[in-house]
Amino acid sequence: MGWTPVTKAAGTAGTAEGSTPLNAFDNALLAAGIGNINLVRISSILPPGVQLVPLPRIKPGAIVPTAYAAQTSEVPGEVVAAAVGWARPEDPGKNGVIMEFHDKATREEAERMIVEMLGEAFRVRGERIRDMRVFAVEHRVERTGCAVAAVTLLAPDDLG
Amino acid sequence: MGWTPVTKAAGTAGTAEGSTPLNAFDNALLAAGIGNINLVRISSILPPGVQLVPLPRIKPGAIVPTAYAAQTSEVPGEVVAAAVGWARPEDPGKNGVIMEFHDKATREEAERMIVEMLGEAFRVRGERIRDMRVFAVEHRVERTGCAVAAVTLLAPDDLG
Amino acid sequence: MGWTPVTKAAGTAGTAEGSTPLNAFDNALLAAGIGNINLVRISSILPPGVQLVPLPRIKPGAIVPTAYAAQTSEVPGEVVAAAVGWARPEDPGKNGVIMEFHDKATREEAERMIVEMLGEAFRVRGERIRDMRVFAVEHRVERTGCAVAAVTLLAPDDLG
Repeated sequence: MGWTPVTKAAGTAGTAEGSTPLNAFDNALLAAGIGNINLVRISSILPPGVQLVPLPRIKPGAIVPTAYAAQTSEVPGEVVAAAVGWARPEDPGKNGVIMEFHDKATREEAERMIVEMLGEAFRVRGERIRDMRVFAVEHRVERTGCAVAAVTLLAPDDLG
Repeated sequence: MGWTPVTKAAGTAGTAEGSTPLNAFDNALLAAGIGNINLVRISSILPPGVQLVPLPRIKPGAIVPTAYAAQTSEVPGEVVAAAVGWARPEDPGKNGVIMEFHDKATREEAERMIVEMLGEAFRVRGERIRDMRVFAVEHRVERTGCAVAAVTLLAPDDLG
Repeated sequence: MGWTPVTKAAGTAGTAEGSTPLNAFDNALLAAGIGNINLVRISSILPPGVQLVPLPRIKPGAIVPTAYAAQTSEVPGEVVAAAVGWARPEDPGKNGVIMEFHDKATREEAERMIVEMLGEAFRVRGERIRDMRVFAVEHRVERTGCAVAAVTLLAPDDLG
């Protein structure tokens, strides 16, 4: 039966330091409000009819299909960025698209890349963008840092 | 309850150029007919009793367990290939296996690797291959190109 | 409805040689007892209320959310390790955490890393660890080898 019905989607982003790269990632997820759920990576479509909402409280341990980008670095002083963005077409019966970006980059560069990638994704689909939202974050590494950005796809049972 | 019941599986492959690596990947998925669904990567078993079908129409935004390979390159002139293949055992109560390959390689090389890998996967399981199918594709990069190949596992609710 | 209800979790680890890196990974999964199921990678939370069990028989082809680490090497003589570990908090209503590690390393180094990472994960959450378990394995590469360690999250329908 698959993972349906996804009814909501929510974006978020966060940054953190940690004593290992995996802890920095875990800490960045906690900073983004999604540190106590199980992310399952998807490539990367916003289903039609999904409601875009602020990140709700998600049940601990819930298994949540998520488009996400993460950049970890152990180079002090380096600036890392992660961004995700969704865009929806004018026809509400058609799907939207989610794009991800992570690199040694600034938040502005990451945001610009997302907008460009979403633009191309809609051009090739022959659709016009009705609305769009980007979630981006940057982090200057102290010792071991991570920037993460995510769009989660949520089912009613995941909430609460 | 998990993702059951998967009842069908379908393979496909495609190639494309794009203005970024992620767009090239997105465009290659569109060329392969799976650009408007959410792929979730699996490692990589064909459940027993699954029907092998030509790629059907899948609901936009469906979350689909998929074994896939993708090779992106930004080196003009480079040839990249991606391939997947499934093989089934003589005993229909036992699972099949899916193998993936991606590299700077030709389609023939990719196909040969899949056949070899499936052969070993069956030898170590003590099974003989009843039937096998490989989906492979190659692409000569113009600027930023991607080759992708995939076997999707489908539930009735994903179709339509 | 997502992937709920996950009711059990089980850890395992294994190593193997193979004639390709993907076959070595496949063979290591077989050695670990999870070679005939579909792993879907999760990042990496132990849901509250889940029962920790020895690895049960899982239906062939089942699609199983799994936190896993794998290290493959084609350098003869190299020692590779993979480890996963879970830890649960004192409050049974709160989620546990799973950490993964893979590298050119010994089993002892991998185990120590898991314990340190779980310790930090609990410190940042403001929780104390009630109990913990690490699954780790090392492998000296002959030609193409792989070490894998995994914690699977299981629903009743996955068993049998």
